[in-house]
Amino acid sequence: MDPIGAPPGPLTPTVGLRPPERSDAARNRELLLTTARRLIEGDGIESLTMDGLAAACGVGKGTIFRRFGSRAGLFQALVDDSERSFQAGFLSGPPPLGPGAPPIERLVAFGRERLRTAAGQIPLLRAAERPAAERYAVPARHLAAAHIRGLLAQAGVEGDAPALAFDLLAILDSVVWLPDEDLTVMLPRIADSWEHIVRRLA
Amino acid sequence: MDPIGAPPGPLTPTVGLRPPERSDAARNRELLLTTARRLIEGDGIESLTMDGLAAACGVGKGTIFRRFGSRAGLFQALVDDSERSFQAGFLSGPPPLGPGAPPIERLVAFGRERLRTAAGQIPLLRAAERPAAERYAVPARHLAAAHIRGLLAQAGVEGDAPALAFDLLAILDSVVWLPDEDLTVMLPRIADSWEHIVRRLA
Repeated sequence: MDPIGAPPGPLTPTVGLRPPERSDAARNRELLLTTARRLIEGDGIESLTMDGLAAACGVGKGTIFRRFGSRAGLFQALVDDSERSFQAGFLSGPPPLGPGAPPIERLVAFGRERLRTAAGQIPLLRAAERPAAERYAVPARHLAAAHIRGLLAQAGVEGDAPALAFDLLAILDSVVWLPDEDLTVMLPRIADSWEHIVRRLA
Repeated sequence: MDPIGAPPGPLTPTVGLRPPERSDAARNRELLLTTARRLIEGDGIESLTMDGLAAACGVGKGTIFRRFGSRAGLFQALVDDSERSFQAGFLSGPPPLGPGAPPIERLVAFGRERLRTAAGQIPLLRAAERPAAERYAVPARHLAAAHIRGLLAQAGVEGDAPALAFDLLAILDSVVWLPDEDLTVMLPRIADSWEHIVRRLA
């Protein structure tokens, strides 16, 4: 699954493959994640403690650690949660993000939706960021690259599709550490310039 | 100097502005950096110690610490050194990288030269990498973005030049953490896809 690998077969989600849970365990997990999101939205990510989350959910702190391993593990679970919706959206959701729209429209929608998702959780993405050396080893990243490659090929875009997919994904990844004072102004402009570049490639 | 700022006036180098040094101090600095490069090329960056560098240069370890502050500071000085040549190249060197070539040719050359420079010092770039939160606060990055914006404007490229410059720079920055096994194959392909995208924008 390296960035230059041959196009894979049908794409399947890389998150959402958790082992089946008992329904009360699933509900419990959902409660913890929903509450964590609410606390982060209210007070910022720095204020979220495992103690505070446990108290807000009415469970013991041990329950949270058993479930997520660590504070970083909790953040990763939150990111996985939104990645799961995003993947469902581009693999099987309604057009133009999902199947049914022309490939270039899907690619435009892919970048816009990814930036929109990122915009809603920048502090979380920063807190959950993996070490730089693992940046390209993330299955979700390979899936996104494969999806872009597939759309470029369907659209008949000339050029080296895997390298172009790498380039395009680099653009979408680059926003996470934009200084806060630039984020609001830059994100819509980066979304527009994404569309501009994608349409120029077509 | 934020990424959306107005185009600056004439561009000037961001490194190379060190206070004047006595000539023996400058020679000493040059000796330390040249020797460090040689040791890194020979044995890899992990093997470079301040003790080893001091011994190889025939100076005391204190001299190196006074000069560079820390091992990370030494790495940063080495990166600055090659950034200085790169900046001299695109600001005032021979075409097509420097003035005199058509703007799109300069932009193609800019990306290719930046990737070539990176390719020659990937372990160093990794070791010298600043914390993610400072990624966009580096003067050299602002200069590169301003240079790209200027070339896009000169070439009459449509669209939002500051946002496009941000996107294009994201592509060039993305190679540093490519897994080693992909680097050799991917770098020439990313250089070609850089050219492909730049020409499509024009």
